[in-house]
Amino acid sequence: MKKIIKRNIKIYNSITGKKEIFNPIIKGHVGMYVCGPTVYNKIHLGNCRTFIHFDLIFRYFKYLGYKVRYVRNITDVGHLENDNDEGEDKIGKKAKIEKLEPMEIVQKYTIDFHQTLYLFNILPPSIEPTATGHIIDQIEYIKILIKKGLAYEVNGSVYFNIEAYNKNYEYGILSKHKIDNLIESSRFLKKQQEKRNPKDFALWKKAPINHIMHWPSPWGNGFPSWHLECSTMSVKYLGKFFDIHGGGLDLKFPHHECELAQIQGIYNQKTINFWIHTNMLTLNGYKMSKSTMNILLPKDIFSGKNTFLEKPFHPNIVRFFILKNHYRSIINISNDALIDAERTYYSLMNKFKKLDNIYYADTDNVVSTFDVFSWKEECHKAMDDDFNSPMLISLLFKATKYIELLEKGVLKLGIDDFLLFKNTMHNFIFKVLGLEPIEKIDNVSKKLINLLIKIRNNARSEKNWILSDNIRNELKELGITLEDNKNITTFKIKT
Amino acid sequence: MKKIIKRNIKIYNSITGKKEIFNPIIKGHVGMYVCGPTVYNKIHLGNCRTFIHFDLIFRYFKYLGYKVRYVRNITDVGHLENDNDEGEDKIGKKAKIEKLEPMEIVQKYTIDFHQTLYLFNILPPSIEPTATGHIIDQIEYIKILIKKGLAYEVNGSVYFNIEAYNKNYEYGILSKHKIDNLIESSRFLKKQQEKRNPKDFALWKKAPINHIMHWPSPWGNGFPSWHLECSTMSVKYLGKFFDIHGGGLDLKFPHHECELAQIQGIYNQKTINFWIHTNMLTLNGYKMSKSTMNILLPKDIFSGKNTFLEKPFHPNIVRFFILKNHYRSIINISNDALIDAERTYYSLMNKFKKLDNIYYADTDNVVSTFDVFSWKEECHKAMDDDFNSPMLISLLFKATKYIELLEKGVLKLGIDDFLLFKNTMHNFIFKVLGLEPIEKIDNVSKKLINLLIKIRNNARSEKNWILSDNIRNELKELGITLEDNKNITTFKIKT
Repeated sequence: MKKIIKRNIKIYNSITGKKEIFNPIIKGHVGMYVCGPTVYNKIHLGNCRTFIHFDLIFRYFKYLGYKVRYVRNITDVGHLENDNDEGEDKIGKKAKIEKLEPMEIVQKYTIDFHQTLYLFNILPPSIEPTATGHIIDQIEYIKILIKKGLAYEVNGSVYFNIEAYNKNYEYGILSKHKIDNLIESSRFLKKQQEKRNPKDFALWKKAPINHIMHWPSPWGNGFPSWHLECSTMSVKYLGKFFDIHGGGLDLKFPHHECELAQIQGIYNQKTINFWIHTNMLTLNGYKMSKSTMNILLPKDIFSGKNTFLEKPFHPNIVRFFILKNHYRSIINISNDALIDAERTYYSLMNKFKKLDNIYYADTDNVVSTFDVFSWKEECHKAMDDDFNSPMLISLLFKATKYIELLEKGVLKLGIDDFLLFKNTMHNFIFKVLGLEPIEKIDNVSKKLINLLIKIRNNARSEKNWILSDNIRNELKELGITLEDNKNITTFKIKT
Repeated sequence: MKKIIKRNIKIYNSITGKKEIFNPIIKGHVGMYVCGPTVYNKIHLGNCRTFIHFDLIFRYFKYLGYKVRYVRNITDVGHLENDNDEGEDKIGKKAKIEKLEPMEIVQKYTIDFHQTLYLFNILPPSIEPTATGHIIDQIEYIKILIKKGLAYEVNGSVYFNIEAYNKNYEYGILSKHKIDNLIESSRFLKKQQEKRNPKDFALWKKAPINHIMHWPSPWGNGFPSWHLECSTMSVKYLGKFFDIHGGGLDLKFPHHECELAQIQGIYNQKTINFWIHTNMLTLNGYKMSKSTMNILLPKDIFSGKNTFLEKPFHPNIVRFFILKNHYRSIINISNDALIDAERTYYSLMNKFKKLDNIYYADTDNVVSTFDVFSWKEECHKAMDDDFNSPMLISLLFKATKYIELLEKGVLKLGIDDFLLFKNTMHNFIFKVLGLEPIEKIDNVSKKLINLLIKIRNNARSEKNWILSDNIRNELKELGITLEDNKNITTFKIKT
């Protein structure tokens, strides 16, 4: 087994509201479940934010040497329009609109989801189970809940009995919703006469006539509820007691609250160690929403085809922008914020690249004049402290100051420290933050520009100013600026 | 609805051994099921061949305006080692070797599969169902077969009863296997004592102790057989009577034979109109096989890291090479064959590009001197004749001869004919064959080369031979050859 870098990781546990020390249940292993998308629409930027932040967590654990089993589901049935027990199935409804079979909708938007996450350099999870792939498991769970008196059947639907559950447990413990308020607020909901109490929630719904997606069950033809799938799939692949359950903050209630009640009801024990919730993403200060037209899809950011941003932005820049914010902070996306992220991204990358030119063979006996190990420890501590990526990024910028001073010869590093410094920067930038270098031009272009620089230098030495100016001006037209330093000419390319 | 280009398509029907006219069951629609991979290993080039040829068929129907529902499954359980009823589950076995959960194996190799097909420019199918996602449907099918006396349970496993089936139907009709020979050859197989007849095949297998993947069923804990999933999923998404069932020739027996018996047994009718089987792919004349080391993975062809080929080849070249062969022919891959495919690919693409420069405004009143419509009709006829892609490609090369003669002014085309000619070539090359232009260099490089050509031409007019020779030689080092024609200098790039 790969050696694990032991760290003292603290995670803000959403259920206790406190930062707690993370001790994995099985030594060297991390089990993490994150609620994936309902695949009925093009992926939302807010979802991407969630998956980018969990990718950071996944990557940090992997970087430390943990064997991480990361399960992220695809919801392809049972998610009703109002996120609760009434309304049409989101996928079924879209299938009617697009005149496709529901599973064609699932395929179309699963592909969009995967392609978008790939552009953001988000690693695929270890397992990506689907709700329709686990109907039997869900039926088995419902049978147990009925047997334990925690669920009841009415007219071919099955509901979770919160009153019975509350004899031993406390529904609302995660989201801090008070049960009495729930009753009050749900009293006015119609069509809930089937339920013994309006606060109960569905586990299995009887399929109405003409409902396309349905399966046989002990209670007749029907389909599983949205909440049940995640309980079933998390336990199936991570065991009944696992380390981390995550998702967007909007899922905390009712989705995660129901999930928690279901699993706890079945296993009579605490089943999840840490709940992690990522915060919301706003656009120009307002909630993204189709109805108000305040909405921006990832593809529109990449292409620049939108009315909010003055130019296109590379997925890497958007990823960097998101990680400049902590996962528990609200992120507000705007033109200025992305322009700033782009500038700082290139600044970080260009300065990091300078390390390639700094080290000289004659520094073998140099005594280091700053403490690389302490800086590295600070980087780790940022990540150990509830995955504080903005703090990590600011420490990487601190490192770019060191690079400037190394360049000027004000600071010095011995060979071992230099390599540690360079490797640590590399690992945190590429492996942990998951950034990638954006190549503005390819290698052939680079070689051609260098050839042009050579021709221009010859022209200058022959005082052929017409040719040398001509080359400079023509390159400028192509967005390539030449910079003449002491003995060397370098070039810069416009973003 | 999009207008359909009516064609008289003939398909070689594998079950009758004859080319038959294709009439879709539902006007304007095509339902096609193709057996997908068992995701326990990196995708095999032979599989890619199958999926490239079915992509051609999918694309041609779409191009003609049909609404195609193309279902291609993922086998994630039940495919046993010897493709029959004994041996370990392929995925379960790999999970033990790689020390992963079976569903982690499924995820890993599904991603590899999708990425490879994406590189080959293979369109995703409309629906991509998984075997584990359809356990309930498979159990329901088995119940019906038992009820009809076509299956029986022994010790928690269920077998298909071929003798009972043969009272009304004929097992072996697809693959022309004689039932008596089957009995003879299977008589020596061990561990088949459970079966009433050795020729019977499993529908459901009892899960041995410690078998990881299993589900509850009326016959106890177990898992479905490989053959059953395709029967279930094809009918679920295409209806019990659908147009086309396809797969590699190696699946014809026993997989497709068993599928056919299962569906026919349930529905008492012919359920599939056309069976299409793609032929095998060999490497240097021999079957690809891990044990003899005569094996080449797609990624090794693209990277060039292999002992069979002298250079890397772009996925597009491999696709073109495969489509230069008919789907029913054995394809032999070799270094020479790929070199040849690469040469002809660039020849086709470069000549097609010349059409951009040929047309002049003054041809408005020109009378065409060759019949574009007949040539287009020939292209269609090639595809109508059992998807004859090699014939189509030879007609595209016939078109390149026309282009040469158009360039020289020997042939002429009126504006309408010219546009028809250009559009038809475009559609058959890009939409039907699914080829893509391979850009050897990017736009910036092109502009830089043109700048260098300009500088060189100035140098030549000033008789500065040193500079002009220098530019030519330096570019040659980069693989870029300059060609001086009458008034213009062009460049060529080494592959």
